[in-house]
Amino acid sequence: MEKRKRTVPAVIVIFGGTGDLAKRKLIPALYNLYLDGRMPQNFQIIGLGRTDLENSAYREKLFNDLSVFSRSGVPSLEEWEGFACRLYYFRSSIESFDSYSGLEEKIEAAEIGFGERSDRIFYLSVAPRFIAKVTENIKLAGLADGLDHDRIIIEKPFGHTKTSAVELNELLTSSFSEKQIYRIDHYLGKETVQNILSLRFANALFEPLWNAEYIESVDITVAEKIGVEGRGSYFEAAGALKDMIQNHLLQILSMVAMESPDIIEAEHIRDRKVELLKAIRRIPVEEVREFVVRGRYGSGTIDGKDVVGYLEEDGVHQDSITETYVALNFFIDNPRWAGVPFFLRTGKRLLEKSSSVKVNFRNQAEGPFRDIYGGDQLPNRLLINLQPGTDIRLRLNAKKPGVNTGLRTAEMIFDFGADNQYSPEAYETLISDMLAGDPSLFMRADQVNEAWDVIMPVLDAWSQGSDDLLVYTAGIAPEELIIPHTYRTDIDELTSRCLQIT
Amino acid sequence: MEKRKRTVPAVIVIFGGTGDLAKRKLIPALYNLYLDGRMPQNFQIIGLGRTDLENSAYREKLFNDLSVFSRSGVPSLEEWEGFACRLYYFRSSIESFDSYSGLEEKIEAAEIGFGERSDRIFYLSVAPRFIAKVTENIKLAGLADGLDHDRIIIEKPFGHTKTSAVELNELLTSSFSEKQIYRIDHYLGKETVQNILSLRFANALFEPLWNAEYIESVDITVAEKIGVEGRGSYFEAAGALKDMIQNHLLQILSMVAMESPDIIEAEHIRDRKVELLKAIRRIPVEEVREFVVRGRYGSGTIDGKDVVGYLEEDGVHQDSITETYVALNFFIDNPRWAGVPFFLRTGKRLLEKSSSVKVNFRNQAEGPFRDIYGGDQLPNRLLINLQPGTDIRLRLNAKKPGVNTGLRTAEMIFDFGADNQYSPEAYETLISDMLAGDPSLFMRADQVNEAWDVIMPVLDAWSQGSDDLLVYTAGIAPEELIIPHTYRTDIDELTSRCLQIT
Repeated sequence: MEKRKRTVPAVIVIFGGTGDLAKRKLIPALYNLYLDGRMPQNFQIIGLGRTDLENSAYREKLFNDLSVFSRSGVPSLEEWEGFACRLYYFRSSIESFDSYSGLEEKIEAAEIGFGERSDRIFYLSVAPRFIAKVTENIKLAGLADGLDHDRIIIEKPFGHTKTSAVELNELLTSSFSEKQIYRIDHYLGKETVQNILSLRFANALFEPLWNAEYIESVDITVAEKIGVEGRGSYFEAAGALKDMIQNHLLQILSMVAMESPDIIEAEHIRDRKVELLKAIRRIPVEEVREFVVRGRYGSGTIDGKDVVGYLEEDGVHQDSITETYVALNFFIDNPRWAGVPFFLRTGKRLLEKSSSVKVNFRNQAEGPFRDIYGGDQLPNRLLINLQPGTDIRLRLNAKKPGVNTGLRTAEMIFDFGADNQYSPEAYETLISDMLAGDPSLFMRADQVNEAWDVIMPVLDAWSQGSDDLLVYTAGIAPEELIIPHTYRTDIDELTSRCLQIT
Repeated sequence: MEKRKRTVPAVIVIFGGTGDLAKRKLIPALYNLYLDGRMPQNFQIIGLGRTDLENSAYREKLFNDLSVFSRSGVPSLEEWEGFACRLYYFRSSIESFDSYSGLEEKIEAAEIGFGERSDRIFYLSVAPRFIAKVTENIKLAGLADGLDHDRIIIEKPFGHTKTSAVELNELLTSSFSEKQIYRIDHYLGKETVQNILSLRFANALFEPLWNAEYIESVDITVAEKIGVEGRGSYFEAAGALKDMIQNHLLQILSMVAMESPDIIEAEHIRDRKVELLKAIRRIPVEEVREFVVRGRYGSGTIDGKDVVGYLEEDGVHQDSITETYVALNFFIDNPRWAGVPFFLRTGKRLLEKSSSVKVNFRNQAEGPFRDIYGGDQLPNRLLINLQPGTDIRLRLNAKKPGVNTGLRTAEMIFDFGADNQYSPEAYETLISDMLAGDPSLFMRADQVNEAWDVIMPVLDAWSQGSDDLLVYTAGIAPEELIIPHTYRTDIDELTSRCLQIT
């Protein structure tokens, strides 16, 4: 989307300016947008933290971080200096109101330099428990009163249940208008995720087939090879369902399954997504065990290396019942998707790192080729690889080469990566959109609430007992844990590597 | 298609056994089928010709020819000897009945060797004027009385007008039953042409879109770079319309546009093809000039070399009005194709050698992406390259890489050639099918008659005057000669390289 060119200056305040996200993602994203000429002419970045640091020390630290984490590699000093001179550090306690008047002075000083009021961006890269206090203080200090200009950026999680999400949204909207609030789901910033909309709605080919008449099932999978990687105590409170399904996978599902927006614009897209989330059939609490399977990784071998089980990870309780894997079978109650199963799967310590959408078309086994080619043909499938592969693959049946030989399965491939001179990081896309005032790729309050509503029956059922929690061997394929409802005897042997907890 | 394994012995009699087709195509095809174990256990090939030759001389000649023309290269002596010992020469005059009793002796001698009656295959690789006499003599000599076993193979042209085609078919069927007659259109033996049926009917994806609702137009193009290449006197009597459109291109059109057969079997496929040919709207004689354009190549430059015009070719009359290029706009009057133009184009001395089918889907310009991406998107297109490229390419619109950038056109490619360890020549496929008694890829009499019926109005119109015959510069693109009905001012300049004959 071609956005209006930003000429208004911006001050970007990062709460958590010395944190991990700032270091790995936010500063690299801002720097690369700067290099690409996508930042406003005048801008200033103010990093907030509790540590005592000089501006120069902060800049030096970020230079070193950037050299490691930026996709553009080690900055040349010349390029870096133009960016670094707009980078400031402000020592503050985010809970103390005094800090906010100090912050106001810094912002106003920047605006005097610009010669005009800036767009003020408050990026809350902080633990969820601080969000209430920070937003309250911003409000009290009157820092974000420019309704059309000032914005609050929130990182997930947006609540931890539907009730808490609704409360958080009420809190946020009591201080700011909804259009000031940008809730980030970084999956929506990925090139390949955004491309789902282009594929569906900018081509004549797919949309006529995109329904229950032609599609047999859809798989959405986000598989990780890593374990909790030292974040055990964080993960203990989250689990795969809240950490991945409630946000990323339900968002991808929305894009795959939503009705066509009249036009590709933020509110149209977000309206269609909410409608889709509402149409997902809620799994009755008493049927959750039929439609959902959860697991926790045991020890195993990944890439030839032995890895420990989840219970052996730092920060994990010995009586933990947190799931590191979850798979759900959803149905969508609307005419387009009547009877089509959607399988959402995510887990850690799986066979490979891979996010993908598989659209499985119905079998042609009864077509004109039935007698001759019978068993050789596979149903058509559109595979959209989101990461780390970034391609789309269409599985077709074609003639086998040779005299009188039948069919073979062929794959048509378009590799997004192959001719990609420029592939922005998700955070670049999202920050650029946010600076331009385009909320298409951000979560509206009702989307967040609705997504929680979808998973609440699962959380409720799980709170009643954990004897359905399987232990799986690290390194299994995402499909190896079978959703009971879809259990088929021909895949019986797949369960052999999973142990029921009793 | 998996055919029943042939165990019945075969005697293959080639009328024209010293001719160009036998040398370049038939013997190499039979030899490669032999190498691949696709010939019957017992077989004999008898080449007929007027020259006086010993078997040994005939074998030596074919060994040399094969070394040049076979896709398997120069035969090893060991392989060749197993084949050559089944290869005989028989000097004969095809018009003299005496020759046929001599031929009968040779065939019966072979059958005594086999210990059983063989399938007798009579391959008429002779000029059209000999067909009546040869078939009459075969009939009189009682050589092909095995209705279920003996076959006659006919090479095009099958007549030169509808009337003569009907006469030829009546002649053939007065001597043989229709199921004994195999009319060869070698285009139907091409892997990629056969693959049209697999693509359409073994995939769920295409058939639901294969109609006027989703397809805007279809282009079928057979472009040649070469001129008449010394065959000027043959081509003078044919012209592009009879030489290419009446047979090859109308057959391809039938496969692209026919209704689905219930099952992939010869009579079902041929029935659907005839129905399609019947559904092609006949161009009224008085409108031929609006829907058809014809041309003759002038001199020009191809691959940097100057080439002479058609009138300067050997064997071409100075007052020739033979067309070396023709393009037609057909419509098909059935519910599937209402209003969809089909463009058939063929010509010599064009920009490149290339046969292809382009299925052009309707534009999505009014879809949800209309405002933002507008001009950048191209309609979807399925391009089936038949030769020399052998791939299918699906043109899609996808997201441009980068922040806020719009759409780009992407191409998904499946290259049949890339993993083709074994790609038979068209003649191998056709001879193998014929030996197995599968006539799917051969022309039935009613197909031939109907195809003539389609082009007769054009021949009739052309007989009334030639002032619509354009002269085009050698080396132009196939689309540069514009069918008047499709004339648009934005492609006006394309006609600048064509001169109207006045």
